Amino acid sequence: MAGHERTNCLSRFFAPRAVAIIGATDDTTRFGGRLLRQTLKFGFAGRLFPVNPKRAELWGLPCFPSLADVPETPDHVGIVLQTGKVIDALRECHARGVPYATVFTAGFAETGTAEGRAMQAAIAAFARESGMRVMGPNCYGVINFNDRFAMTASSSLAPELARPGNVAVVSQSGGLGTVNVMWRAMQAGVRVNYVASTGNEADLDAAECATFMLEAPSTEVLMMAIEGIKDGDAFMRMAERAAQLGKPAVVLKFGRTQAGARAAASHTGAMTGSDEVFDAVCRQFGMIRVSDANELYETAIMLRGKRLPRGRRIASLSLSGGNVVQIADVGEQLGLEWPAYGEDTRRRLAEILPTYGTPTNPTDITSLASGQRDLLKRALDAIASDANVDVMAPVFTFPKAAELDQIVQLAQTIDKPVVAIVTGACLEDEAYGVERIVGKGVPAYREISTAMSAIRAAAGYGEFLRGFRRRDTLRRPSGISTAPTPAFPLEGREQGLTERASKQLLARYGVPVTPDMLARSADEALAHARTIGFPVVLKIDSPDIAHKTDAGGVRLHLASEAAVRAAFDEILAAARSYNAAAQVNGVIVAPMAAPGLELMLGSLVDSTFGPVVAVGLGGIHAEVLRDIAYRAAPVDRIEAQAMLHELKAFRLFEGVRGERPRDIAAIADAIERLSWLAHDFRDEISEIDVNPLVAYERGVLALDALVVRTTERETK
Amino acid sequence: MAGHERTNCLSRFFAPRAVAIIGATDDTTRFGGRLLRQTLKFGFAGRLFPVNPKRAELWGLPCFPSLADVPETPDHVGIVLQTGKVIDALRECHARGVPYATVFTAGFAETGTAEGRAMQAAIAAFARESGMRVMGPNCYGVINFNDRFAMTASSSLAPELARPGNVAVVSQSGGLGTVNVMWRAMQAGVRVNYVASTGNEADLDAAECATFMLEAPSTEVLMMAIEGIKDGDAFMRMAERAAQLGKPAVVLKFGRTQAGARAAASHTGAMTGSDEVFDAVCRQFGMIRVSDANELYETAIMLRGKRLPRGRRIASLSLSGGNVVQIADVGEQLGLEWPAYGEDTRRRLAEILPTYGTPTNPTDITSLASGQRDLLKRALDAIASDANVDVMAPVFTFPKAAELDQIVQLAQTIDKPVVAIVTGACLEDEAYGVERIVGKGVPAYREISTAMSAIRAAAGYGEFLRGFRRRDTLRRPSGISTAPTPAFPLEGREQGLTERASKQLLARYGVPVTPDMLARSADEALAHARTIGFPVVLKIDSPDIAHKTDAGGVRLHLASEAAVRAAFDEILAAARSYNAAAQVNGVIVAPMAAPGLELMLGSLVDSTFGPVVAVGLGGIHAEVLRDIAYRAAPVDRIEAQAMLHELKAFRLFEGVRGERPRDIAAIADAIERLSWLAHDFRDEISEIDVNPLVAYERGVLALDALVVRTTERETK
Repeated sequence: MAGHERTNCLSRFFAPRAVAIIGATDDTTRFGGRLLRQTLKFGFAGRLFPVNPKRAELWGLPCFPSLADVPETPDHVGIVLQTGKVIDALRECHARGVPYATVFTAGFAETGTAEGRAMQAAIAAFARESGMRVMGPNCYGVINFNDRFAMTASSSLAPELARPGNVAVVSQSGGLGTVNVMWRAMQAGVRVNYVASTGNEADLDAAECATFMLEAPSTEVLMMAIEGIKDGDAFMRMAERAAQLGKPAVVLKFGRTQAGARAAASHTGAMTGSDEVFDAVCRQFGMIRVSDANELYETAIMLRGKRLPRGRRIASLSLSGGNVVQIADVGEQLGLEWPAYGEDTRRRLAEILPTYGTPTNPTDITSLASGQRDLLKRALDAIASDANVDVMAPVFTFPKAAELDQIVQLAQTIDKPVVAIVTGACLEDEAYGVERIVGKGVPAYREISTAMSAIRAAAGYGEFLRGFRRRDTLRRPSGISTAPTPAFPLEGREQGLTERASKQLLARYGVPVTPDMLARSADEALAHARTIGFPVVLKIDSPDIAHKTDAGGVRLHLASEAAVRAAFDEILAAARSYNAAAQVNGVIVAPMAAPGLELMLGSLVDSTFGPVVAVGLGGIHAEVLRDIAYRAAPVDRIEAQAMLHELKAFRLFEGVRGERPRDIAAIADAIERLSWLAHDFRDEISEIDVNPLVAYERGVLALDALVVRTTERETK
Repeated sequence: MAGHERTNCLSRFFAPRAVAIIGATDDTTRFGGRLLRQTLKFGFAGRLFPVNPKRAELWGLPCFPSLADVPETPDHVGIVLQTGKVIDALRECHARGVPYATVFTAGFAETGTAEGRAMQAAIAAFARESGMRVMGPNCYGVINFNDRFAMTASSSLAPELARPGNVAVVSQSGGLGTVNVMWRAMQAGVRVNYVASTGNEADLDAAECATFMLEAPSTEVLMMAIEGIKDGDAFMRMAERAAQLGKPAVVLKFGRTQAGARAAASHTGAMTGSDEVFDAVCRQFGMIRVSDANELYETAIMLRGKRLPRGRRIASLSLSGGNVVQIADVGEQLGLEWPAYGEDTRRRLAEILPTYGTPTNPTDITSLASGQRDLLKRALDAIASDANVDVMAPVFTFPKAAELDQIVQLAQTIDKPVVAIVTGACLEDEAYGVERIVGKGVPAYREISTAMSAIRAAAGYGEFLRGFRRRDTLRRPSGISTAPTPAFPLEGREQGLTERASKQLLARYGVPVTPDMLARSADEALAHARTIGFPVVLKIDSPDIAHKTDAGGVRLHLASEAAVRAAFDEILAAARSYNAAAQVNGVIVAPMAAPGLELMLGSLVDSTFGPVVAVGLGGIHAEVLRDIAYRAAPVDRIEAQAMLHELKAFRLFEGVRGERPRDIAAIADAIERLSWLAHDFRDEISEIDVNPLVAYERGVLALDALVVRTTERETK
C-alpha cells in the first residue's frame, strides 16, 4: 500500500486534545455556526480553534485565517466548506500533521452524479494514500459524553443530558441517529457514552467506529443504524469482537426492501447486499436485529448491566388479571417459558395468599393484595429466589411509589434480571415513570409486548454467548483432497461445470455424491450399469447442455440391459436434436438412488459478505416459500445444524407424519464441507447448486450438482 | 323460552335515570366505597341511591336499608356483596322491577371451583328466566362519557378526562380495559364515549355491549379486549353489523397460546376456541386484530374521522434522510405502495426545490429546506393534491410549532388522511407533542413502524369495506340435491362414513368426485374397469377400515384386465388378514386420476364459531407448515378465493416454476359447496376431510374423502 501506515486507534479522534473547525462562523443559520456553538456549549475542555479568513474572533474565541496559522496541531479537524473545497482542506490538514478530520459537507456520492462520486473517490484515495483518517463526507460528526467532546450540528444535544453512560450509538444517518436513537434513548432514561454519524463513509466506516466503542470499557451495549455495509469482512470482524467481549450489538438496517434500497442510495450513497444474508450474519455473530429505531434503545435497556437471564424461564405477577393473561400469551408466543414455581416458592406464596389454592405462573394476585401492604413485596421476594426462574417481569397498572421503589431495590439486589412493566402510571407521583426506573439502571417498559421482546432478545443473546464461547476455531474438515485432477483446481473455460465435474469437486471436499461413470458407447454404458447394479440412471454429459431434462438427456429407472442400451441411443439423439453444436463428452451412468428427503444445498457470493452457504428443502420450499437458511462461509458443524433448526420445515428432519428421521449430522457435515469449498474458491466460483441432496435415515447423497464459475465481470 | 321477553336495548343500562348501589359504603379501602365515590365524582346527573342497612347517610346522600326502601325504581343497580348473597340481591332487583344490574363481586366461575361455577350458572339462569339483564359477575362496570355516568371502581377515571369522544371500549378484563386501553388511549389524546368491562359474562357479553356501542351515533371506532367468546354466532352478527355501519372494530384477543388460555380460564373463566379460526373470522368480517393493548388505540387513532385512505398509495417527506429510508422500508414491507408523483406535483416540487433533480417518493428535502421558511408547507401542499397519493405521512424530527400547525391544518382541510410522525419533539414547546395533535383529531405517531401499521390497517379496512359492500346475500350454490338416498340424509351408525358414502355426499353438493363404482366380485370389478377405461384404481370399501393403505386395501395404476382381477383378490385377502371381523362392502373401482396440484379441503366444527371450512395444499403444507386458510361456513365464492390468496403457497396456483396455472374458480366453487355442506350438517358432521382434492388447469377432482359423524358426546 502506498503512503503511510494507517492508524486504527480512534482514541484521539473521539477524544482530541485540540480541535479546529474550518468554516466556523457565528451565523447560526449556517451549519458552521451551529457546529461551533454546539461544540462550545457542550463544554469541550481542550483547545478549540475556529478557522475562517473573514473573522478575527467568534464568540470570544480567536479565529484563524487558515489552519497553518493555528498555534498547535489539532488532533481532529472539522470541515464545513463548499463541496469543491473539501479536498484541498484535507490536504492542508495532512500538511499540518493532523491525524483525523470530519467532513460535514454534503454533495458527494449521495447526489448520484458522476461529479459527486468522483469527489468522494478523491477523498477516499487521499485518506488511503496519506494515512489520515477521514469521517464523512455528508455526516453529522461525533459526540463523546465521557470526555465531553461533541463536534456535531445536531440540535438534539442539550448539555444537561451530558451525563456519560454505557450505551454507544453508531449511525450512518445523522438525523435518525441523533434524534430517533440518541435523543429518544436519553428521554427513555438511557445514558449514552459515544455517538458517531458516519455519513457516506469515504474512509472511516460504521464497523470501525463500532469497534472503537466496543473496546471502550464504559460501553455495555452498542446500537447501530446502518443503510449499507462498506466492508463485509470488517463488519463481521467487528461483530465477532463484540461477541468475544460479550457486548451485545443491536442493529437496525435500512434498505431491506427495494423502496428502502433506492432511498438509501440517494441518502448516503449506500448500496445494500441481500437482506437474507445480512439476517444470517446477524444470527451467526449474535447481533440483535430490530425493525425500527425505538427498538434499538428498548432492547438496550434490557441488555445493560451485564445481567443476562440464564435461560428463558420467566415469572410474572400482577394485580390485574387481564395483564396476567396478556403476558402469558405474549411470553409463550415469543418462545419464553412459564415454569411452575418450586416447592419452596409455592409454600411461601401459599402463606402470603392463603385463600389462593396452588399459585400458577404468571400469578394473578388480584384483589387479594388490597389491604395487605407488603403482600406484593413478599410475593416478589418468594419468586425472586426460585431456582426455576431466570427472569422476573411483574406488571403494574397504577402502582404506588413505594411499590416501584420495592421493585427497583429488588432489581438492584438480586443476581437475575428484574423488569418492571407499568402499563398505567404512578398516579401519586407522575414523574415516577418508567424513564426514572430506567435511569436507575433497571429495565422498565410501558408495553408488555415491548418488554417481552426485549427479554426474549436478552435470553437469546445469552444462549448465543454460551454457544459462542464453546466454539472452536474454525477448522477445515478432514478428508479434503487438494491433489490436482482435471476438475481441480478449476480448469476449462465453460461458465457452468458439467454435473460430473461439479460432483468431482464436491467429492474432493468430502460431500457424498453418486458414483457416476462416463460412458462413450452403449457397450460401455452397459458395462458400467453391471458394475453399479440395476436399476441405473443415464444422463447426458455436455458442457453445453445445462438443462439436461429439457434436452431429453435424462432417463431414470433403467432396470434391464435392453433399457440401458435403448436409453443411451435415445439420449445422444435427443441431445443432437436439442443442440447440434453441443460438445458431448458421453453419457453418465449412475445408480438409481433410493427416495429420501430432497434438500437444496448451495452457495453464492454476496456482494457484501462474500461466499455464503445456503440450505433448504427442495422444490417449492426454497423457490416459492423462501424457506432457506444462509450463513457466511465457512461454518462449523454446530452452525450448520443451527441452519437446519432455523428452517420452518425443520420438523420434517425429525420424522413427522410417520416418516423416518433424517441424518442431521450427515446433512450438517455436507453443509460444513460445501461452505469450505465456497470459501476456498470465493474468487473462482460464483454459485454452487446441489439439487437434490437427498437425506436418508443414515447419510446423504448429492444426485445432481452445478458449479458456476465467476465471470470476468463479476470479479472485483 | 320461559320467563319474560328479554330486552336487547341497553340504552338505560348505559344511561340510567336512577341508580342504586347495593353494598355502598364510605370506606374507600373497600370496593363499595371506591365505587360510590367514583360514581359521585364523575358527576352523575341522575338520582343515586346507596343501599346499606348499616348506614343512614353516605357523603351527604341518604342511604337506604334495602332496595325496597329506595324511593323510585332504579334503571340500573350495582351489586357489591359477598359472593353468596348476590343471587338474592338480583331477585330483590327483579321484584322491584329493575331492568339492569351489574355484579362487581368476584368468586364465581373464575375460581375454577364447582361452587363458583354453580353460583354463576344460577345468575345466568336467573337472567334467562326473569328477563332481567345482568352484567358480570367479576367485572369493573361501565362508563358513559356522553351522559356522564360511571359505575366503576377503576381509579383510572379522573373527571377532567371526561370530555366525550368517538372511540368505544369493550373489555372482559376490567384492569386491562380501563388502564392499558382506556386510560392510555386518553393519555394519547384519544377521546372515549363508552367503556364496558363484562367480566365473567353470565348474561350480558362483550358482543352485545359492542353492538350497543356500534349503534350509538357518536361511536366511530370500537376497541375490544377479549379473553373468550361466549356466543360465536352473536359475535359474528356484531362483527357483521359493524361492517354494515362501516365502523371498524379493533380487537385484542388473549388466550392465543396454551399459557394464555390457562391464564384466561383462571381469570374470567373464559374458554377459547381455535386461534386460527378466530383470526379467520376477523378477516371475514373486517375486524382488525392486534397483539397488545396499546395497538388498540394506536390503530383507532388512524381510524377515527371517517376518512379512510382510498388505496395503499402513500407519500412521505422529511428533512431527515435516514427517516426517509426507514419509512420507505417499513412501508414496502407492510405492503403499502410508494407511487411516483404526478407530473403537476413534480413540476411544483421542482420549483420549490430547484437544485433537486427529479423528486422521488418518499422525498428527502434535507438541508435544502433550511432558510426557506415555507418550503415544507409548499411541498406538502403540492403532494397533497396529487391524485396518485391516497395518504400522506411526513416525518419530523425536531419540528417547529408552526410546522406542526401547518400539518394539522392540512389534515383538517383535505379529504385524504394526513398522518404526522414526530420521532423527536417540538423543542420550542415541549407540550406540543403527538398527543396534542391526536387531541385535535389528526393521527400522529412517534414511531414510523407504528404509524405505518396503523395506515396499513386503515387501508386494509377500506379494501374490506369496498368488498363487503359488493357482497351479495349468501346464497346456496345451484345444483345441490337434497333428494333422499341411502347416504343422504346421513344414515347408519358408523362414526366415519366410507369413502364411497362420503363422496356421494360431496357429489350431492356438487363437489366433483371420481365416478367410483362398487364391485362385489372380480368379474364386476373388471366390468366396471372396462366402463371407466384403463388404468384404474381399486380400493377396499369397508366401514371398519379407515386407513385403507395401511390395510393393503389400495392398488393404483391397474392397466390390464389381469391386473384388475389379481388386485381384487389381493385386496380382499389383505383386508381379511388386517381385520377379520371387518364388514366388507366390496371393492371400489375408480379411474386413475391424472396428476395435478394436491389440495386438502375440509371442514371442522369450532367450539366457538361452529362449522368452519378449511383449505390448504396437501402433504406437509397443511400438517407441518400449518399453511391453512379457514372461514366460518358458509362462504361465497369471493371469500373462497380470498382464502386461496391467503395461503403462503398461493403462487403455486398461478403456475410458478413452469407449472401450469390451476383452476382457481373451480377450487373456490368446491370450497363454497363444501362450506354449505358443513353448514347444513353442522349438528351431524364433526369433520370432513377431502384429501386430496386435485386441482387441474381446468377443474378439480376429489380423489378421497372422509366424513366423520358427530358423536353423542360432541353434540351440545
